[in-house]
Amino acid sequence: MALLLDQLFAPLPDNNEIATKTFLESVSHLPPFFDCLGSKVFAPIKADINGNITKIKAVYDSDPVKYETLQQILLIEKSIYGSEWPKVGATLALMWLKRGLRFIQILLQSLADGERDEDNPNLIRINITKAYDQALKRYHGWIVQKVFKAALFAAPCRSAFLKALTKDQEVAEEDCLAKIRQFLINFTATVDAIYEMYSIMNAELDYLV
Amino acid sequence: MALLLDQLFAPLPDNNEIATKTFLESVSHLPPFFDCLGSKVFAPIKADINGNITKIKAVYDSDPVKYETLQQILLIEKSIYGSEWPKVGATLALMWLKRGLRFIQILLQSLADGERDEDNPNLIRINITKAYDQALKRYHGWIVQKVFKAALFAAPCRSAFLKALTKDQEVAEEDCLAKIRQFLINFTATVDAIYEMYSIMNAELDYLV
Ligand SMILES: CCCCCCCCCCCCC/C=C/[C@@H](O)[C@H](CO[C@@H]1O[C@H](CO)[C@H](O)[C@H](OS(=O)(=O)O)[C@H]1O)NC(=O)CCCCCCCCCCC
Ligand SMILES: CCCCCCCCCCCCC/C=C/[C@@H](O)[C@H](CO[C@@H]1O[C@H](CO)[C@H](O)[C@H](OS(=O)(=O)O)[C@H]1O)NC(=O)CCCCCCCCCCC
Repeated sequence: MALLLDQLFAPLPDNNEIATKTFLESVSHLPPFFDCLGSKVFAPIKADINGNITKIKAVYDSDPVKYETLQQILLIEKSIYGSEWPKVGATLALMWLKRGLRFIQILLQSLADGERDEDNPNLIRINITKAYDQALKRYHGWIVQKVFKAALFAAPCRSAFLKALTKDQEVAEEDCLAKIRQFLINFTATVDAIYEMYSIMNAELDYLV
Repeated sequence: MALLLDQLFAPLPDNNEIATKTFLESVSHLPPFFDCLGSKVFAPIKADINGNITKIKAVYDSDPVKYETLQQILLIEKSIYGSEWPKVGATLALMWLKRGLRFIQILLQSLADGERDEDNPNLIRINITKAYDQALKRYHGWIVQKVFKAALFAAPCRSAFLKALTKDQEVAEEDCLAKIRQFLINFTATVDAIYEMYSIMNAELDYLV
């Protein structure tokens, strides 16, 4: 499980504040996740997520002390940008990034839970669609939704996807799923905490792209 | 006609050799063309074309004398790369770039020629589809073709597109079309010459993405 398991997310501290540096380091291992889907069709998604990470990193690097936690980034940007906020800066980048993270989380959780299309047990369309419906669909206009439906056909079958996640290592499916469950513990907690922060700060937007 | 007309392509010399530097300069004004389509859905296309240009420019910049013309790039890369060629280097980047240029050329030519869907005279889907069918479709697998069909709905109407091409200037439609025709003269000759070069050099590939 080279891809996910060697880079477990850090556990959250009691106050749920997420250290920007650690978060950026963990999350930088995720874009290759989209390569595991096995088609160049997903390159624009990887690029979009990479763009989010680069943007947050640039803000962090401009003053690592000031922007030590994700919470501080939102607070400071809110005071800097006034009425432009939250559709601006690292706040906007993290708003979208968390949706991509939620997508990954729900997809992995659904696989770990053994959810399957009984008629097509080796396909993962049902798991991808669940993740898309819950994490992204409501932020996409009908054209992007149509593009998603078309791109879905490029998704790999279940066995190929699990194999790609483990890279070259030979891992039995059950071991792979166990490792996914282990990865999900801190990952889910982190994504939940970011969502909660956006909700508390009233920083969530629901415009369509 | 800020976008296109202020940057006419250079006329071809008698031997049809295209100066790399001039070509890169002219072609660098084209990616904003995809912004004229008015939707962020087209951002991945713009990124792909920008990537091609960056790759060719990097090869040129590594030795501007050696790579003075596009013909020299293909000849030299053929000798450097052996059996890997032509699916490599600036040869591959230009192979795909020329298809994007052909797409733009056919689309503009079709508008200039007044081709219309009589039932929807203010839509340009018919013109975009013609350009896609002739320039790109055969290199796209069925999934990317499906994505294209979905993305087509994001195309602007004819008047909005022509207006975007002229940027802020107020230009009557007939003037705009006249300028497109003027732009197309050297542009079409350049694209034709590149296609001819790929054919003569046996450098064209027809694998699908
Ligand atoms: C030849 C024919 C070609 C036709 C043209 C092709 C058209 C292709 C259209 C592809 C869409 C690609 C996905 C990207 C969508 C993006 O538009 C959205 C919003 O993106 C955000 O927008 C903000 C401004 O509003 C800022 O710029 C953010 O940037 S900022 O950092 O600058 O602030 C940016 O992330 N991101 C998203 O929706 C996030 C997507 C996450 C992906 C989740 C996985 C889905 C997996 C699906 C598997 C089946
Ligand atoms: C949330 C849901 C999200 C779902 C996911 C979204 C999926 C989106 C899929 C979008 C496809 C975007 C278009 C890009 C397609 C590209 O795959 C191809 C080949 O691209 C080439 O590939 C080579 C290797 O084979 C090299 O890497 C080249 O790179 S190299 O420089 O490194 O050598 C590269 O250009 N280019 C193309 O087909 C060229 C496209 C030109 C565009 C022409 C205009 C079409 C206009 C259409 C208007 C309606």
